[in-house]
Amino acid sequence: MKILSFRNNNVISFGPKVKRQEAVWDVLAIQQELNVLPSFSNTIVEGMTDGFEFVEQMRKLVEAAEKSENPASFQLAFTAIEWLAPIPRTTKNIICIGKNYEAHAQEMTNESAPEDLVVFTKAPTSIAADEETLSVHADVTQSLDYEGELAVVIGKKGKNIPAALAFDYVFGYTIANDISARNLQDKHKQFFLAKSLDGACPMGPFLVTKDELPNPQNLTVVTKVNDEIRQNGTTSDMIHTVEDLIVEISKLVTLEPGDVILTGTPAGVGKGMTPPQYLKAGDTVKISIEGIGTLVNYFK
Amino acid sequence: MKILSFRNNNVISFGPKVKRQEAVWDVLAIQQELNVLPSFSNTIVEGMTDGFEFVEQMRKLVEAAEKSENPASFQLAFTAIEWLAPIPRTTKNIICIGKNYEAHAQEMTNESAPEDLVVFTKAPTSIAADEETLSVHADVTQSLDYEGELAVVIGKKGKNIPAALAFDYVFGYTIANDISARNLQDKHKQFFLAKSLDGACPMGPFLVTKDELPNPQNLTVVTKVNDEIRQNGTTSDMIHTVEDLIVEISKLVTLEPGDVILTGTPAGVGKGMTPPQYLKAGDTVKISIEGIGTLVNYFK
Repeated sequence: MKILSFRNNNVISFGPKVKRQEAVWDVLAIQQELNVLPSFSNTIVEGMTDGFEFVEQMRKLVEAAEKSENPASFQLAFTAIEWLAPIPRTTKNIICIGKNYEAHAQEMTNESAPEDLVVFTKAPTSIAADEETLSVHADVTQSLDYEGELAVVIGKKGKNIPAALAFDYVFGYTIANDISARNLQDKHKQFFLAKSLDGACPMGPFLVTKDELPNPQNLTVVTKVNDEIRQNGTTSDMIHTVEDLIVEISKLVTLEPGDVILTGTPAGVGKGMTPPQYLKAGDTVKISIEGIGTLVNYFK
Repeated sequence: MKILSFRNNNVISFGPKVKRQEAVWDVLAIQQELNVLPSFSNTIVEGMTDGFEFVEQMRKLVEAAEKSENPASFQLAFTAIEWLAPIPRTTKNIICIGKNYEAHAQEMTNESAPEDLVVFTKAPTSIAADEETLSVHADVTQSLDYEGELAVVIGKKGKNIPAALAFDYVFGYTIANDISARNLQDKHKQFFLAKSLDGACPMGPFLVTKDELPNPQNLTVVTKVNDEIRQNGTTSDMIHTVEDLIVEISKLVTLEPGDVILTGTPAGVGKGMTPPQYLKAGDTVKISIEGIGTLVNYFK
């Protein structure tokens, strides 16, 4: 199932993509009108506290709509809604992994990636949507950079999660751009500020449930700036796999439904080019991951 | 006004301390029974979106209770409630400043504090309450350390906040212990994991509104471990003042009501002692800040 979040009549909502159509099932409307389930959460993060059962609930709602007199009345065309990030607001900062691809560590520092996890966060105020136009923040940086990444969405609360159960805690996957102000990253050493500018964490377009991506370690990650290929990596090159990350992070931090983990970026960022090529007003960045889609953002 | 958060009959609530009594006004009950205000938020973070007006609302509720037939029926004895951190759950990670006192920078690194802000975060799952017993996390660290700090609670959404208006964005102050696993801080370089163990951010006992602490830069900060004084600092030694922090952080990150900024710790942490003295099961840590009170935690 491909799930998207959106705003419609000023209400934040969500629902599964209608198969083979550029439209979304308005599951909140289905539940309200057809009263299919005894209860159904009205935010995506709350829904995820039911774990993967939430997907089953949405399936039942879609089935009920399909059997109803006017299925189309429960569908909203993509052109009629304002898209949001799949998790429009995380309840923790977004958890991010640094230097999780050897070639990227090399391009950033001319050194091998450290053995130990590098983990920092991005403020939830940095979350942005697919197709959103973002600021290059020229008042504070001349070195804004993209980082195309596979994002893991957690679907179950956990601490000390064993490797064998790691994927029980995954709800699904989306695409993220871990936008970074390189001057601020150098200046402040700890990465939080440099990574948390408004709009610095676009995510989307879809949250793809884990059943559709049984192996997250064999996906190509391609980033284009103005249609020039900059990153052409594969998640098979991750140093710490999705499974490793869930095990290692949850040894220390309690993971919760709706938490998002950005798994690091492959080589090819702007800082690694000779000379460096940073984002400028007018640029378009497209990040594609197999099985999820393409996250597009414009810069002004 | 001294505000506390608490759990009563499984409901998370909040209210002002009753003057000269070890009790809290149950403002949600006052509003429900006496219907004083046209509307009143039922969580502390929501209430803060009204800015300092929220304090005025609580004053009106207390006045109404005092004039009612049975004022005591709206008071809950401290012994009858479960205390929570003043902000039981922040909507961003807790924003933390590193090396904001010269003597602390020296004890940690034998070097002067860096000129530029060091900003990292703690997961909201690390928040704990006054008087709570916390784990020493012996499974992952043998070097758990305390850091007594003044915490600033933001009361208004802002970006690019000018110095002259910085305190308009402050709601009040509390005490925090920025508990840190030193081994993990060294190992992972970025501080998030080392600072985000469950219970690693006790805060309290009260959120003191800013009108009661007009100058946050002249407060003593005293930390005792088992009644031995370890830290005896003053916020007048902060390198970046509360005003500076609000200005500098809001140049990059949007601040929101209920956000908490830990302003850094003075010298005297366990790592700085010869030999280092880390927290162990059975220890009691007490952090006192003038005008706020004492935050007490036990370790097991």
